[in-house]
Amino acid sequence: MKELKQRILQEANVGEGDIIHVDMFLNHCMDMELMERMGNEMAKRFRGEKITKVLTVESSGIALACFVGRALRVPVIYAKKFQTGYIDPNVYSAETHSFSFGKSYTIRVSKKYLGRDDRVLLVDDILANGQAALALLELVSKSGAEAAGMAVAIEKKMREGGSVLRRMGLRVEALAVVERIEGDRIILADA
Amino acid sequence: MKELKQRILQEANVGEGDIIHVDMFLNHCMDMELMERMGNEMAKRFRGEKITKVLTVESSGIALACFVGRALRVPVIYAKKFQTGYIDPNVYSAETHSFSFGKSYTIRVSKKYLGRDDRVLLVDDILANGQAALALLELVSKSGAEAAGMAVAIEKKMREGGSVLRRMGLRVEALAVVERIEGDRIILADA
Repeated sequence: MKELKQRILQEANVGEGDIIHVDMFLNHCMDMELMERMGNEMAKRFRGEKITKVLTVESSGIALACFVGRALRVPVIYAKKFQTGYIDPNVYSAETHSFSFGKSYTIRVSKKYLGRDDRVLLVDDILANGQAALALLELVSKSGAEAAGMAVAIEKKMREGGSVLRRMGLRVEALAVVERIEGDRIILADA
Repeated sequence: MKELKQRILQEANVGEGDIIHVDMFLNHCMDMELMERMGNEMAKRFRGEKITKVLTVESSGIALACFVGRALRVPVIYAKKFQTGYIDPNVYSAETHSFSFGKSYTIRVSKKYLGRDDRVLLVDDILANGQAALALLELVSKSGAEAAGMAVAIEKKMREGGSVLRRMGLRVEALAVVERIEGDRIILADA
């Protein structure tokens, strides 16, 4: 998606450990018009897939997931990673690990909202090592639902997440793909 | 807002400590059409207020804040309560306490995104004791910005948050007001 690629090249910068800082439009101070257009584009790519639910995980994927859900006219579930708000104690749960923060988490979705009739689209802001995605897939699998694919704003191709998920047979769509980072420069695929 | 009140009366239920469970449409599995209409209604109520930023806090207010920000055509910032995604280390921070979970948190917003030219609308899903709102107001105040008001989906009138904020001179708009809870029954104002 051209607009996202331009924003990355013009505004994003590179931090320690090849972390890409996109807090200025994507995951802290969010540009709503961009978010909506990204959500619409993700929805378009999965329009034929008979999606019944959009699933993301707290917190940085929630905004994008909302615009995808709105465009597809399906509910959006966010798996809980933290103790925020009530959820039913009867949950599907899975363990995940964030390499960026060196922390492990249990993510949880109430059993009421995922089941064998669901076709689920996973949505997140950034795909790197794919740990969060694998945990979401585990929740989907435990519920008996089917994962129809994953849509992310930015895929970091120098990390293994995308290729692991695709080898598992999951359709993964990224709106921008980072090939590699050279010093302070972000090199995008097809940019 | 009639539609929200009906959903509360038809679907919500009451848990221990007068917690209202609205995970089925508001803060776990989210009904996007309802969320969008709530966001539009909140935006309408603050349309004349020259809002420049919408501010919420992780995680349950993010979805609503997005639809408000989209309708007002302004950026949405979510204050970080957890270690998720990158934010600049140069932050405004404030302490807050969740009575529901018996936990204290530090919330943080990057200094880059709030400043003295901003008029900020706070958005959250539920207003009870108002601790999160007070911490958000502290961030706004530290940044030199002005708080134009707060919009919440549900205000629990039997808790003090709404009256504390209004006594401070803040305009608070709730789409549904819970007067009290009687056993398992939720009693709404003007429902």
